[in-house]
Amino acid sequence: MVVPMAVMQNMLQKSVSLLLKDNSVLEGTLESYDDYMNIVLSNTEEMTENNKRKLGTVILRGNNVVRISPK
Amino acid sequence: MVVPMAVMQNMLQKSVSLLLKDNSVLEGTLESYDDYMNIVLSNTEEMTENNKRKLGTVILRGNNVVRISPK
Amino acid sequence: MVVPMAVMQNMLQKSVSLLLKDNSVLEGTLESYDDYMNIVLSNTEEMTENNKRKLGTVILRGNNVVRISPK
Amino acid sequence: MVVPMAVMQNMLQKSVSLLLKDNSVLEGTLESYDDYMNIVLSNTEEMTENNKRKLGTVILRGNNVVRISPK
Amino acid sequence: MVVPMAVMQNMLQKSVSLLLKDNSVLEGTLESYDDYMNIVLSNTEEMTENNKRKLGTVILRGNNVVRISPK
Amino acid sequence: MVVPMAVMQNMLQKSVSLLLKDNSVLEGTLESYDDYMNIVLSNTEEMTENNKRKLGTVILRGNNVVRISPK
Amino acid sequence: MVVPMAVMQNMLQKSVSLLLKDNSVLEGTLESYDDYMNIVLSNTEEMTENNKRKLGTVILRGNNVVRISPK
Repeated sequence: MVVPMAVMQNMLQKSVSLLLKDNSVLEGTLESYDDYMNIVLSNTEEMTENNKRKLGTVILRGNNVVRISPK
Repeated sequence: MVVPMAVMQNMLQKSVSLLLKDNSVLEGTLESYDDYMNIVLSNTEEMTENNKRKLGTVILRGNNVVRISPK
Repeated sequence: MVVPMAVMQNMLQKSVSLLLKDNSVLEGTLESYDDYMNIVLSNTEEMTENNKRKLGTVILRGNNVVRISPK
Repeated sequence: MVVPMAVMQNMLQKSVSLLLKDNSVLEGTLESYDDYMNIVLSNTEEMTENNKRKLGTVILRGNNVVRISPK
Repeated sequence: MVVPMAVMQNMLQKSVSLLLKDNSVLEGTLESYDDYMNIVLSNTEEMTENNKRKLGTVILRGNNVVRISPK
Repeated sequence: MVVPMAVMQNMLQKSVSLLLKDNSVLEGTLESYDDYMNIVLSNTEEMTENNKRKLGTVILRGNNVVRISPK
Repeated sequence: MVVPMAVMQNMLQKSVSLLLKDNSVLEGTLESYDDYMNIVLSNTEEMTENNKRKLGTVILRGNNVVRISPK
């Protein structure tokens, strides 16, 4: 079995979609993460129902993360 | 007694259903987990009352997990 | 004094009722637990006001548990 | 000073009243506890405004506990 | 600087007022505390808007505490 | 870089404003703190929209703190 | 891979925007941080829908932080 953190390793420099606990959805390129699931995205966009908002580079504190998927 | 994490071991590569704290239900193949209950599913579908939404591969942060069952 | 985790030991392979933080009630056979109160039930049923729903084997993450009683 | 856990020691095998985070009140005999405030009560009754409900032996996960008093 | 836990030391055996996360206010004599801010009060009274309710000795789990003041 | 806890050191014995998670605002003199952000204020006043309420010395449990500013 | 905390290092002394769990947005110069994501901003402004409110220097407790971006 490849542990979850190693699966994240395979997503580095690729487009990912992030769901946070406040129900916001962020899309961007996975630049960095650590064991606590602190995450850095570049070219981030916050996806709302009818819109996208550019956020650029974003550092996310791990305890806000619900799930991460490749896009 | 087989400890809970060893029971999870037996579900690897099988279909599971996951209930998260936000009441979402995800179904997919259990690819990976760790002691914190971080989980990786493949071929994931988010089950809503009248619909399914394909999510592909998903990494879930353990603190969002309520329960896991084999399907 | 027998510590709480040792009391749980005595419930192994017996019918228990579980109250979770989301107010759901699960009944089943206690198959496994660990120090964090991660729990495995078999033949699980989710008890709602007018109904039972069969869930089979369920792994529960400990931080969702409020209380456990023998049935 | 007698530390809080030693005060709890003095309540062993006596009647106590427990307030939980979900505002439920449980009364019973304190059978066991640990440093995390996991608690075992016997002859437990859940006190509601107009009623009592017998729960028998109950293991409570410590993080749900607000306060404990001798009865 | 006297660390916060040492300030608490000076309140031992004195009247204190406690604010908890559920917005309840308890007044009593500080009998005991530990590093986690588990607290024991004696002669405790729960203060509500128009009333006082005697609770006697109370053990409080630290994670429910917001603030403590001498009375 | 001066770490955050060292910045707090510079505020000792000075007037500070504290925002807590329950949205209450406390003003007082910073007497003490520790690594967990447990904090002691003296001459504390709770600021409400139209009023001030004197609280005297207050020990605050760190996990309730959102932010601290010099006044 | 540059770990998330090292990405934060590159934002030191630069303008950043902070989203907190209470949905407040703070903008200021990143003066300091630690591994727990405790953060110090200078020249901080709280951004509300139609207004800015000057807060000066602010120490933020890490567990309130959702995300940080360069401005």
